[in-house]
Amino acid sequence: MFTVNQYFDGKVVSLGHEGADGKATVGVIAPGEYEFGTSTVEIMTVISGKMNVKQPADSDWKEYKKFESFRVEKGISFKVSVDQDTPYQCLYL
Amino acid sequence: MFTVNQYFDGKVVSLGHEGADGKATVGVIAPGEYEFGTSTVEIMTVISGKMNVKQPADSDWKEYKKFESFRVEKGISFKVSVDQDTPYQCLYL
Repeated sequence: MFTVNQYFDGKVVSLGHEGADGKATVGVIAPGEYEFGTSTVEIMTVISGKMNVKQPADSDWKEYKKFESFRVEKGISFKVSVDQDTPYQCLYL
Repeated sequence: MFTVNQYFDGKVVSLGHEGADGKATVGVIAPGEYEFGTSTVEIMTVISGKMNVKQPADSDWKEYKKFESFRVEKGISFKVSVDQDTPYQCLYL
């Protein structure tokens, strides 16, 4: 029914689905810092708590809070850091 | 790391975690109608799309949309109906 995706030894887990906003995942990130790559444009939304993000075009980290979103361009890698379990949604454009 | 919970033959899947709002799950519900029971008070939040909900105290279904929440009392059963894959968050109080 839904795909269960595990990354970084299970520290990042997501559920793939296709809902009102198209192809998407919801998942959870355990405390730590991670680097992700994109194969499409992605819209990430924090569902609870906060997420620190460093995109390649930015010199500094930016903090995103509950229900805040950010766009990630296709074909880049970006860093995410969280200090507690942080649920998120990702849309694939 | 995170628990993967499957219900209704995998039509409802959730990821258990403990984040900024305490004990929680994020999950996805496939199209259909389901009846859930609660063992604690729960706060459900729709992440994308919409969800129709019928609580025992209500005579009619109510529709909740993206980022809208509803509270479910402890020890009851309630019905949820969705017409497409619908991601949600559940907090356990």
